[in-house]
Amino acid sequence: MYSSVSTIWVLLGAAMVFLMQAGFAMCEAGFTRAKNTGNILMKNLMDFCIGTPTYWILGFGLMFAGSGAIVGGLDPFVRGDYSSILPAGVPLFAYLIFQTVFCATSATIVSGSMAERTKFISYCLYSFCISAFIYPISGHWIWGGGWLSQMGFHDFAGSTAVHMVGGVCACIGAAILGPRIGKYGQDGKPRAILGHSLSLGALGVFILWFCWFGFNGCSTVGMEGDDVIASAGLIFVTTNMAPAVASVVTMVYTWIRYKKPDVGMTLNAALAGLVAITAGCDVVSPAGAAIIGVIAGLLLPISVNLFDAVLKIDDPVGAISVHGVCGAAGTILTGFLSTSEGLLYGHGARFLLIQCLGVAAVALWAAVMITIVFLIIKNTIGLRVTAEEELKGLDVTEHSLPSAYGGFAFVYDDTPDGLPVPDTGAMPGPVPVQEAVPVTVDSDGVKLTRVDILCKMERFDALKRAMFEIGITGMTAINVMGCGEQRGKTEGYFRGAKVEATMLPSIQVSIVVSKVPVSLVVDTARRVLYTGAFGDGKIFVCDVENVIKVRTGEQGYDALQDSRE
Amino acid sequence: MYSSVSTIWVLLGAAMVFLMQAGFAMCEAGFTRAKNTGNILMKNLMDFCIGTPTYWILGFGLMFAGSGAIVGGLDPFVRGDYSSILPAGVPLFAYLIFQTVFCATSATIVSGSMAERTKFISYCLYSFCISAFIYPISGHWIWGGGWLSQMGFHDFAGSTAVHMVGGVCACIGAAILGPRIGKYGQDGKPRAILGHSLSLGALGVFILWFCWFGFNGCSTVGMEGDDVIASAGLIFVTTNMAPAVASVVTMVYTWIRYKKPDVGMTLNAALAGLVAITAGCDVVSPAGAAIIGVIAGLLLPISVNLFDAVLKIDDPVGAISVHGVCGAAGTILTGFLSTSEGLLYGHGARFLLIQCLGVAAVALWAAVMITIVFLIIKNTIGLRVTAEEELKGLDVTEHSLPSAYGGFAFVYDDTPDGLPVPDTGAMPGPVPVQEAVPVTVDSDGVKLTRVDILCKMERFDALKRAMFEIGITGMTAINVMGCGEQRGKTEGYFRGAKVEATMLPSIQVSIVVSKVPVSLVVDTARRVLYTGAFGDGKIFVCDVENVIKVRTGEQGYDALQDSRE
Amino acid sequence: MYSSVSTIWVLLGAAMVFLMQAGFAMCEAGFTRAKNTGNILMKNLMDFCIGTPTYWILGFGLMFAGSGAIVGGLDPFVRGDYSSILPAGVPLFAYLIFQTVFCATSATIVSGSMAERTKFISYCLYSFCISAFIYPISGHWIWGGGWLSQMGFHDFAGSTAVHMVGGVCACIGAAILGPRIGKYGQDGKPRAILGHSLSLGALGVFILWFCWFGFNGCSTVGMEGDDVIASAGLIFVTTNMAPAVASVVTMVYTWIRYKKPDVGMTLNAALAGLVAITAGCDVVSPAGAAIIGVIAGLLLPISVNLFDAVLKIDDPVGAISVHGVCGAAGTILTGFLSTSEGLLYGHGARFLLIQCLGVAAVALWAAVMITIVFLIIKNTIGLRVTAEEELKGLDVTEHSLPSAYGGFAFVYDDTPDGLPVPDTGAMPGPVPVQEAVPVTVDSDGVKLTRVDILCKMERFDALKRAMFEIGITGMTAINVMGCGEQRGKTEGYFRGAKVEATMLPSIQVSIVVSKVPVSLVVDTARRVLYTGAFGDGKIFVCDVENVIKVRTGEQGYDALQDSRE
Repeated sequence: MYSSVSTIWVLLGAAMVFLMQAGFAMCEAGFTRAKNTGNILMKNLMDFCIGTPTYWILGFGLMFAGSGAIVGGLDPFVRGDYSSILPAGVPLFAYLIFQTVFCATSATIVSGSMAERTKFISYCLYSFCISAFIYPISGHWIWGGGWLSQMGFHDFAGSTAVHMVGGVCACIGAAILGPRIGKYGQDGKPRAILGHSLSLGALGVFILWFCWFGFNGCSTVGMEGDDVIASAGLIFVTTNMAPAVASVVTMVYTWIRYKKPDVGMTLNAALAGLVAITAGCDVVSPAGAAIIGVIAGLLLPISVNLFDAVLKIDDPVGAISVHGVCGAAGTILTGFLSTSEGLLYGHGARFLLIQCLGVAAVALWAAVMITIVFLIIKNTIGLRVTAEEELKGLDVTEHSLPSAYGGFAFVYDDTPDGLPVPDTGAMPGPVPVQEAVPVTVDSDGVKLTRVDILCKMERFDALKRAMFEIGITGMTAINVMGCGEQRGKTEGYFRGAKVEATMLPSIQVSIVVSKVPVSLVVDTARRVLYTGAFGDGKIFVCDVENVIKVRTGEQGYDALQDSRE
Repeated sequence: MYSSVSTIWVLLGAAMVFLMQAGFAMCEAGFTRAKNTGNILMKNLMDFCIGTPTYWILGFGLMFAGSGAIVGGLDPFVRGDYSSILPAGVPLFAYLIFQTVFCATSATIVSGSMAERTKFISYCLYSFCISAFIYPISGHWIWGGGWLSQMGFHDFAGSTAVHMVGGVCACIGAAILGPRIGKYGQDGKPRAILGHSLSLGALGVFILWFCWFGFNGCSTVGMEGDDVIASAGLIFVTTNMAPAVASVVTMVYTWIRYKKPDVGMTLNAALAGLVAITAGCDVVSPAGAAIIGVIAGLLLPISVNLFDAVLKIDDPVGAISVHGVCGAAGTILTGFLSTSEGLLYGHGARFLLIQCLGVAAVALWAAVMITIVFLIIKNTIGLRVTAEEELKGLDVTEHSLPSAYGGFAFVYDDTPDGLPVPDTGAMPGPVPVQEAVPVTVDSDGVKLTRVDILCKMERFDALKRAMFEIGITGMTAINVMGCGEQRGKTEGYFRGAKVEATMLPSIQVSIVVSKVPVSLVVDTARRVLYTGAFGDGKIFVCDVENVIKVRTGEQGYDALQDSRE
Repeated sequence: MYSSVSTIWVLLGAAMVFLMQAGFAMCEAGFTRAKNTGNILMKNLMDFCIGTPTYWILGFGLMFAGSGAIVGGLDPFVRGDYSSILPAGVPLFAYLIFQTVFCATSATIVSGSMAERTKFISYCLYSFCISAFIYPISGHWIWGGGWLSQMGFHDFAGSTAVHMVGGVCACIGAAILGPRIGKYGQDGKPRAILGHSLSLGALGVFILWFCWFGFNGCSTVGMEGDDVIASAGLIFVTTNMAPAVASVVTMVYTWIRYKKPDVGMTLNAALAGLVAITAGCDVVSPAGAAIIGVIAGLLLPISVNLFDAVLKIDDPVGAISVHGVCGAAGTILTGFLSTSEGLLYGHGARFLLIQCLGVAAVALWAAVMITIVFLIIKNTIGLRVTAEEELKGLDVTEHSLPSAYGGFAFVYDDTPDGLPVPDTGAMPGPVPVQEAVPVTVDSDGVKLTRVDILCKMERFDALKRAMFEIGITGMTAINVMGCGEQRGKTEGYFRGAKVEATMLPSIQVSIVVSKVPVSLVVDTARRVLYTGAFGDGKIFVCDVENVIKVRTGEQGYDALQDSRE
């Protein structure tokens, strides 16, 4: 005899938790660069698409088919009898879809921290592993009747089971991968790499918050009986209170520390509060939820800074801190703040210790297993794309997609730094550039010349540094489209049709020189830009009559000596 | 004894109304400029995050803790007994979250009309005031057992209680702030300031429409009994009919008036229809809803035009007309079209008059209170950012966020107009620019010279006007990135990491002159651009051999005399 | 006696299916170009807004008011008695809104395939026809008690009734319209036209997938009784399995065929799987759903390629393949895979044949009716915009909207190709361009000259081809804003306020020539750009001292002879 209301509740929850995929996709895309957008969207799509059949074939059985302490059982295609573990009144398939979307959430967390530099095929593989056994087995411990649930470990909707598992995998992955090119300057200090759309990031956060009402609220997996109904109401209140408070706290924290309220960090804080309240949303009071929010709101920016600046683990979207750190913190805080078992409510330390034990055990499990998976991948097909692929962007190199934003103009990527100039071939000797006879000289009798250098975007950073080295103090850069008659080569595919770009994006760097010899600028540019392949670029030299600096009124040579205008 | 179905219904409604935050955020961001996107997103996030604890501590009590005519009571943290006012079968916490999200909706409306020029700290403060007492007290009158509800005022889901309160605050706020720089030309006529993403705006509208099924439909706060169930069905139909009809009517209206169907206004019209149907969605027939849609669809473009062109209150997203005007109209129209009490159904004018009284009383309450709040803020910490901050954009000045769209190229902001050129310092005398000996002359014997002026984006409008004044008739502008060796200053923070921009966006204006002396152009540019600080820009002068106008074939001097090519 | 749970289920479904409008709007906008974004959003809004009252006045009656074999009846404003056809326990209005949103889904599919070239007024008209009678009549056959339902045709949630009807109309429409300018090269091969935002496209797909749980799941139109409850659970699992598997299969297919996993096609595949499972989601097993997913995942890329490259029907978003082909396939596959009636489960071929008959009959009905509608429109008010309007974009020409993305910089549209240079007026004879005396010559004694051509974006492709013809081998293009004093003309409206653009986007093409005479370049440019109207552009000529090719070190004339740098 099934229950209409309980099944409605579970299915509503399943649909809402599914929508988290949209939230994660928008967050991860928004906080990373436009050149990798197609790739990150594809990863978000595929972890769910790979995870769905994987969980059906392997995961669900490992998690629920049997009540062993360590692992459930094998039940490919979910054909067994689960009547003993099903929530009252909920059909098996309703429960299967509900569990499937939770599993996919765990898998999708990892793509964020490993964004912008992971091989797509490798992503598919380790995403499969998370859905196939890493998440299901620790999930069995917590929700499938395993040893932690037998001890009384309480993780209502998955601070540990879902989020911390994802966060730990995210951390190990980002650490093994290493930081993105340009993330750390030559002084070792972290540099911000701006996301390409805070709008999408914020939309993702709002969608996730909405979905979390399903994630936590519908984890009652039923809606029969006064206790359950009242619990659902409480869960909605606590699930809302923690992220609201966490956001305010983080905003104030960043306002004090960085002088201004930080938008990106505050958006992250909302997720941190949601993750932290997930374990205990049913057993803490609204005031307890507010306290969890305060702690998550403080923990998040400190943790982000710790991983970014101290541990130097490059996590583009903050997944480690949001899901890993706050997932663990929320689970442990439940040990303090549970009104029925918590230490602060006078119920002793036993429950708290079980919570800590559970967090430690699951973190260890996830860390060990994912490390094995990553090391196998790294030593076989490889985990990270090449530096050239990373600089060009994963959309074009991994998916032949010229741009996820066709028609929009971009500025070059200002990030790369510290990467040695690639030595890709032997350059012929310097060009004996003939210095033209000055036709105009400025008041100092110094000829002014403009050198326009047309080159690939990904070489701009190296060119800039080389120019500074030879004494150039200022330049302007502009994005142009370069075009040649013979250029109609296939550059990629978009929905199966060839993209025939006859115009390729290039960067044109303009430098006005007076005392630095033109030949030195030309030779230096050639040295940096030369690869020996077509498309290395061109250099144009032309005459300039005068230069005036607005601030000082200086002209000619003098006007070029300060680089800050 | 709680009701499963009623609680599911109320909690579903709460989640859907929460998602309105995403809808508002996307609408407000989409209809404003990219340089303020992070700021508007942050405001949308924070009004909910501040409102949630505020309503829990103060608002809910003022609204529901007691049945006084004017105000409920004080019940910090909602610890009282609300059994007498709770909907049948719904637990207190389910009702609390439902009311919380409604309160936040009211607060979030205001950010739209005050967008692009309000100080962030001030926004946080008045947003707090709306959630703390302005909304709760008039809400008590209508829904908490206060004097209006005792008189029989009918505002089913909040045309007045939520939307008009927000709209009135939005109107007062926008009026006190004054228009954005450039909104009105020197002739006093309004100029359009294009939003930066109609896609996000449209997404916001669709999300809001979706959420409105929860806003109105779930305001039955129960799902037991044939009357309630049938009512929910009717509400869904009327809630859908009004915006559909309103959109069609507005589209036709703009098509006739402006010759083309206006996209932005039609999107607004959908919201206008939704706001207008909210008061009477349960008591009007589908035909009545269609009539309300027709009126909202006519009222909206007229009202937007009235505020924009006549009253000159600058409301970037149309919040005043959508929420204020259509909220009031919908409430009053219920007095005509209610099938059980409406004038047009032969039930006399009493109900209509009560509706009018309610609208007037609530509007007065909200107007007086928010005026006090705004005036206190204005005279203490200030309400509006400086002109320089506004021109630069609130993302960078209020949040140290260089851009919400990292990597995208922008055109300069064409909006600013009429702002006097800031006199920020004493400029040294004119530069004795040496006119170079003409090396090439065109067929008229006139030397042609190109002057390239590199300057800050926010000075471009002033530069353009100054050039027109000295006789220049045409120019081209282009966005470049300017770069200097010593420029690696911290420019901002993104998620706690320093943004070290070595390249700063500038604008390069190119002017080809023949008879206007180069020295006049240079001196004029210096006068406009000079502030005495680093970054005032540079001016480059170079020779041009010839200019040909495509249309006429004119060359040289003649080719420069018409500005419309 | 109404059922709370059944009504909740139906209303939840209605809200979720409404949200599909957001999904379709984002998909269609994302996969098309930015210059048509306002137009496509407006179409998506208006088909729903026109469809809602139309279905209320005409459609619902034709579909459900009567049990004739061919058509229901006339029941304007839905005032009849539908008690015999209403699902158990569901009020009429709940059923009305549920059916309304399904109807709108069918109408909205068409806008995608006809995007970027259809007149807006014509769109409104045919969208009306689909909602008024095309969809309702075949819908009556299937769901309203008509001949197909009497024969036992099974289309649970509308693979045929909703999606294939939309897909067939999309196909006929795209075929009658013809391809977008530039879609097919002079060799007849299809060229990719990049969408402007894969993020929005992916968001649309995730939203649609979420909504599909309502589309299919809530099509039980009830939640009473164990069978129905269990069915709902199964539907959620099958509805999720098919798109997941389809996405994986398409990804692998494109990986093999095009060497890289295609993002756009894989996103399409998710929708293909959803459409295909819709007919049989209640009668196939999860394994059956996986098989349907495999077939949809193979069929989609093959079908897209077939329409694109072989049939040459230009479908910007893949609507024909997703909704038409996979809708038909899913319906027919139900004949094989239905566990209760399918051929593969030993139930004989009769059911399969009925499925095939239903698909054929509905496809024929939709094709004939929409062809009549399109031909009437084409021969009266016209179906397609002019070539000039198409090149400029529908936002500005159909809605006076200068840009849906105000402030963003765009690169010119690289797509147009093969369009003859418009001959819009008699150009005065060639300009006797005076070749300036060379002031500098390169090492070969050849003067180098740069010609900068400022022109309208939509003429760039013609200019490029003309330059190649006269022997120019390379050029750079850059987007500038051109400005003239007298240019303050009203260029459009945005929410009722005039957009006074004083700066208009232009393209500046730079060509450095040595042996090709400057006068030939100038005359050729004039010939291509001349229309005789203001705004034809200007040509600037200036001296260049030297050019160096990075790869070879060649200088001067030699450096210009290879076009691939």
